[in-house]
Amino acid sequence: MPHITLSESLPGIRSLFAFRPETARPLNELVDVLLRGPHTLSPGERELIATYVSAENDCRYCQTIHGAIAAHHLGGDEALVAQVKADPQGAPISEKLKALLAIAGKAARGGKHVTPEDVARARAEGATDVEIHDTVLIAAVFCLCNRYVDGLATWTPEDPDFYRQRAVVVATHGYVGVTQMPNYATPDPV
Amino acid sequence: MPHITLSESLPGIRSLFAFRPETARPLNELVDVLLRGPHTLSPGERELIATYVSAENDCRYCQTIHGAIAAHHLGGDEALVAQVKADPQGAPISEKLKALLAIAGKAARGGKHVTPEDVARARAEGATDVEIHDTVLIAAVFCLCNRYVDGLATWTPEDPDFYRQRAVVVATHGYVGVTQMPNYATPDPV
Repeated sequence: MPHITLSESLPGIRSLFAFRPETARPLNELVDVLLRGPHTLSPGERELIATYVSAENDCRYCQTIHGAIAAHHLGGDEALVAQVKADPQGAPISEKLKALLAIAGKAARGGKHVTPEDVARARAEGATDVEIHDTVLIAAVFCLCNRYVDGLATWTPEDPDFYRQRAVVVATHGYVGVTQMPNYATPDPV
Repeated sequence: MPHITLSESLPGIRSLFAFRPETARPLNELVDVLLRGPHTLSPGERELIATYVSAENDCRYCQTIHGAIAAHHLGGDEALVAQVKADPQGAPISEKLKALLAIAGKAARGGKHVTPEDVARARAEGATDVEIHDTVLIAAVFCLCNRYVDGLATWTPEDPDFYRQRAVVVATHGYVGVTQMPNYATPDPV
């Protein structure tokens, strides 16, 4: 049961966005820039970073919805998402993305865990300053979201189809966009 | 030395805001709503929560600048800020703020550390749903900022006067406001 009174029809962070729209707007704008803005990393790659960090932080809601969005962007490849969560360094992804995921995992444990060697490895695989910056910031933003969702004990649906269907809506309309849809506070039919 | 190429004249998160203004804007808007927006907790109390979380996360830049801003709001009481960082439960602050700081400290370690008992204690001291929500979100936002600042190894000035002077500017103009000042990328004279 959530620690505060939230809409019973909305899961996870969506119930918090409905509770406090003043903070929802800038937070969703930040996530839109990072995960959907113009970039040399694809939306699928950036969602994989968000998913991996959320899995490392053991946040079931965030890792499941962002994993579903990542899979949507990656042609429905849910097996790849599962591999990245379990063993990013052994997954069939680029060497650059492996190096960025290593940085993200360390930043999730604490900023000082990221070493010059971690950054040199990413750079040797072709990572740019913006890619390294955004990897650290994506990791930091999901450390925020994971604590926000679990720190207020929000509701986590169990049905994977719930997340698969929502992923299509979010991938289509964006993070700010979905909060502005007229049926935002209405639960999705599953 | 920072992990990416940043302005050498700007310390901490300010160098990151100058590097990536697209993410700086919504992040500062979020912090303005949480720390400076209309609220039943004073700006000083909210800055104390940010300072305490940043100290728990061992982020020197964030704990020092937000500690200086908290002290500014609290009539210059730097000793109180130091007490809250070292021993919030023994500090001369309200029982409600002590209960909220306990929630913030647990949320900083991970969302699942916050228990129904922690929340019941805050509620017994008069905390509202918005105060509990915002305490968790302030803690989560500073878990973001601390990882962002240290994960990219930004420059941390040593002179306390640097932070005292900056605190007055931030307290006067706000978090978005200071990034829009024409001399934003110019170092403060110390």
